Amino acid sequence: MERKALLIIDMQKGSFANAVRLDAFAVMKRIDRVAREFRARGLPVLHIRHDGTKENFLIPGTVEWEIVDELRPEAKDIVVEKAANDAFYRTELDATLRDLNAGELLITGCATDFCVNATVHGALTRDWRVTILSDCHTTADRPGLGARSLIDFHNWLWAELTPTGGAIRVLDSESALAAIES
Amino acid sequence: MERKALLIIDMQKGSFANAVRLDAFAVMKRIDRVAREFRARGLPVLHIRHDGTKENFLIPGTVEWEIVDELRPEAKDIVVEKAANDAFYRTELDATLRDLNAGELLITGCATDFCVNATVHGALTRDWRVTILSDCHTTADRPGLGARSLIDFHNWLWAELTPTGGAIRVLDSESALAAIES
Repeated sequence: MERKALLIIDMQKGSFANAVRLDAFAVMKRIDRVAREFRARGLPVLHIRHDGTKENFLIPGTVEWEIVDELRPEAKDIVVEKAANDAFYRTELDATLRDLNAGELLITGCATDFCVNATVHGALTRDWRVTILSDCHTTADRPGLGARSLIDFHNWLWAELTPTGGAIRVLDSESALAAIES
Repeated sequence: MERKALLIIDMQKGSFANAVRLDAFAVMKRIDRVAREFRARGLPVLHIRHDGTKENFLIPGTVEWEIVDELRPEAKDIVVEKAANDAFYRTELDATLRDLNAGELLITGCATDFCVNATVHGALTRDWRVTILSDCHTTADRPGLGARSLIDFHNWLWAELTPTGGAIRVLDSESALAAIES
């Protein structure tokens, strides 16, 4: 079985202070549960942290830029800094995952339609095997579309994308945990 | 001013025979108008053609795989074959665009939420300056969401993405044509 790595994207204080994210604390709690299981099994947990200097938002060193207390990185976690939507764009993420001998990426975080989706595409075009946790990502209402519709739509969309090097699938966190434990 | 190149994604007969695409013929007509203007000015027109062998759909050599009659490639047009959602994935597109000395990509085609969106992300992570033509892409109704909502949502989303090497913007075809003619 391929070694799994957990990606937690942009779960920063400012992401939750600037917009109402659907089910924010329930999503954090579920991601935390998966992260604890990963750590307990010696599997890598990677936090992606957005540097929003270009957008004048999530500026490094500010409170908004910090990862939420509910998911505070632990000693062995890895933090990867990014400045675009796609966490692979000009970052160390791809090389770090290869160094870790990762084979499958479990993707979680915020926002569904921005950095999570962009990172799913970035992972696909780098031939990663991708599993998105359907109940571990969130977004806000957008013009004309509610957050719930967007989350459901992306969970449907990702499962329908054409796989590249590996499979792409969408699983809820319970099923993903069951797959790790088995 | 940077040299523009027009991308026409997956405007194949099967894309329009397997699903009802919103405003299909109006979208084709608008893309055709832009393509004619590009050709008249000696600017490159690139058709992206999906090889869906993996999905058992849009198989090379079949009628479904052909580009729609309304947008049939002309002699100087370039056709790039792809087999993933992102037109840059393992294709000659990036090298071809650089050979053409392109500076800005005008993106059109089908489907908004699949290959158009994936190619927008692929273009961004390769530092292309990107303009999506808001009235020159289409999709079908999806579970829980109508095509109109999805098209409007993506036009909003793309304009909100973080630029990489160049700008990303969303313009209607009239405005894009005016910018070419000026």
